[in-house]
Amino acid sequence: MSPAAAGTPVAARPVFIVSDGTGITAETFAHSILAQFEMRFRQIRVPFVDSVDKAYETAQRINEMYRAENVRPIIFSTLVDAQANEILRNCHGVILDMFQTFIEPLEVELGLKSMHAIGRVHQNADSEAYKNRIEAVNFSLAHDDGQSNKNLQSADVILVGVSRSGKTPTTLYLAMQYGVKAANYPLIPEDFEREKLPSTLDQYKDKIFGLSIDPQRLSEIRNERRPGSKYASLENCRYEVNEAEAMMRREGIKWLSSTHKSIEEIATTILQEIKLERDVY
Amino acid sequence: MSPAAAGTPVAARPVFIVSDGTGITAETFAHSILAQFEMRFRQIRVPFVDSVDKAYETAQRINEMYRAENVRPIIFSTLVDAQANEILRNCHGVILDMFQTFIEPLEVELGLKSMHAIGRVHQNADSEAYKNRIEAVNFSLAHDDGQSNKNLQSADVILVGVSRSGKTPTTLYLAMQYGVKAANYPLIPEDFEREKLPSTLDQYKDKIFGLSIDPQRLSEIRNERRPGSKYASLENCRYEVNEAEAMMRREGIKWLSSTHKSIEEIATTILQEIKLERDVY
Repeated sequence: MSPAAAGTPVAARPVFIVSDGTGITAETFAHSILAQFEMRFRQIRVPFVDSVDKAYETAQRINEMYRAENVRPIIFSTLVDAQANEILRNCHGVILDMFQTFIEPLEVELGLKSMHAIGRVHQNADSEAYKNRIEAVNFSLAHDDGQSNKNLQSADVILVGVSRSGKTPTTLYLAMQYGVKAANYPLIPEDFEREKLPSTLDQYKDKIFGLSIDPQRLSEIRNERRPGSKYASLENCRYEVNEAEAMMRREGIKWLSSTHKSIEEIATTILQEIKLERDVY
Repeated sequence: MSPAAAGTPVAARPVFIVSDGTGITAETFAHSILAQFEMRFRQIRVPFVDSVDKAYETAQRINEMYRAENVRPIIFSTLVDAQANEILRNCHGVILDMFQTFIEPLEVELGLKSMHAIGRVHQNADSEAYKNRIEAVNFSLAHDDGQSNKNLQSADVILVGVSRSGKTPTTLYLAMQYGVKAANYPLIPEDFEREKLPSTLDQYKDKIFGLSIDPQRLSEIRNERRPGSKYASLENCRYEVNEAEAMMRREGIKWLSSTHKSIEEIATTILQEIKLERDVY
């Protein structure tokens, strides 16, 4: 019988995220695994555990919680150091060791010892790849909402769509996560009257990707910003969405509906569509 | 002997990221594990594998690559569906199954069957938590660079620091990853002359966190924007950084140096310092 079954019921099972870096990878992964269980969890994030002393401290915190609540905490860990790992493995928790579990079979398959080097787990702030990501974020901010045509030729992708269809968060996510330089241009009533894309975009046809959205949802979103306005009215939203979709079809622009998609899903789909794989590392 | 050793040498070992969702969790994790090996990899991202047919297609792609290159591709997979998983497990790749590996011990420990439900792996675009994240991104954009004092009381954190010390990317990351409403205010020469923080911030002292940066690095960053300007000169950067740090010490503001830290590291440190844990889920 597990301590949980023997003890008093607790409100939410404790989950420790233990990492020698930020713990963001372990946390994201923990959320996706724990979402498969119909119960409540409460998370304790313990980042930057980069010494044996800090590993001992963390083990102690876990043991104290075990004694106080009479239930073994779940531990998602990505510790590179073997000694720190050993310390955690001996505490009163259920350890899910994301590092060791996969490093060992890989060492066998690759015929190569891993470096067990702390700090390689996350992208180093001084690396080229990191600098590209920050440059992409700055690019996306400077090219938000059609603000600037400068250097538009160096954009990897240009998103178009009606106001509040999800362009800005998507361009920022593409930049931050993938280092993709993403500009975005609003499609506005003037474009619909002329029945043409903004002329700035003519020469960049192959980089354009469209976002559309259900008019009902668009009207809700716009009403949060400008309640009761013509801009937010369902009738106007229907008009704009219809015109924007007709224009994208006419111009042969690939597009997707953002209505029920997260920015992660939208960004991943765009990467696939425009075949922008930065794939050697 | 592995096929790799037997075959002709290849430039970069193929790595497949296979997921029924976006694959972002699996990709991030794969990068952190593979960074421990001194060799080159090339990545093939296969998101949205949410049917048995797509699992077969993926297995076929992997088998074709195995035959063409005579080396077993590495596969990081987060497939929830048991049948899809089984199909992948039977192909000619080295499968690192992030889902099954951890779900099974958790089911035993929690005394609960997991739901094996596709689409729970990532935050649903219609969930409250997701809407909070997007709201936080919009908040951070509206409160970038001291643009607006509106609703500043609903900020979770207000970053201060000299121009180009890393405030904007950090506030966007805090919003996007953690749903934290983060505003940011530049510290400018006028503030240093008055020797006081911008007066708008007086009532929000407990929410303020500072970023500083090495003057040499700051000068490099500013020179990319405005080459040869007084703004970018090392002398001016030294002056601004000294004044800003003196002000933060005087006002009792916690701060860190962003010089060698990634936005992930900065954001995680800030979350710890301001004790902003959204910890029950």
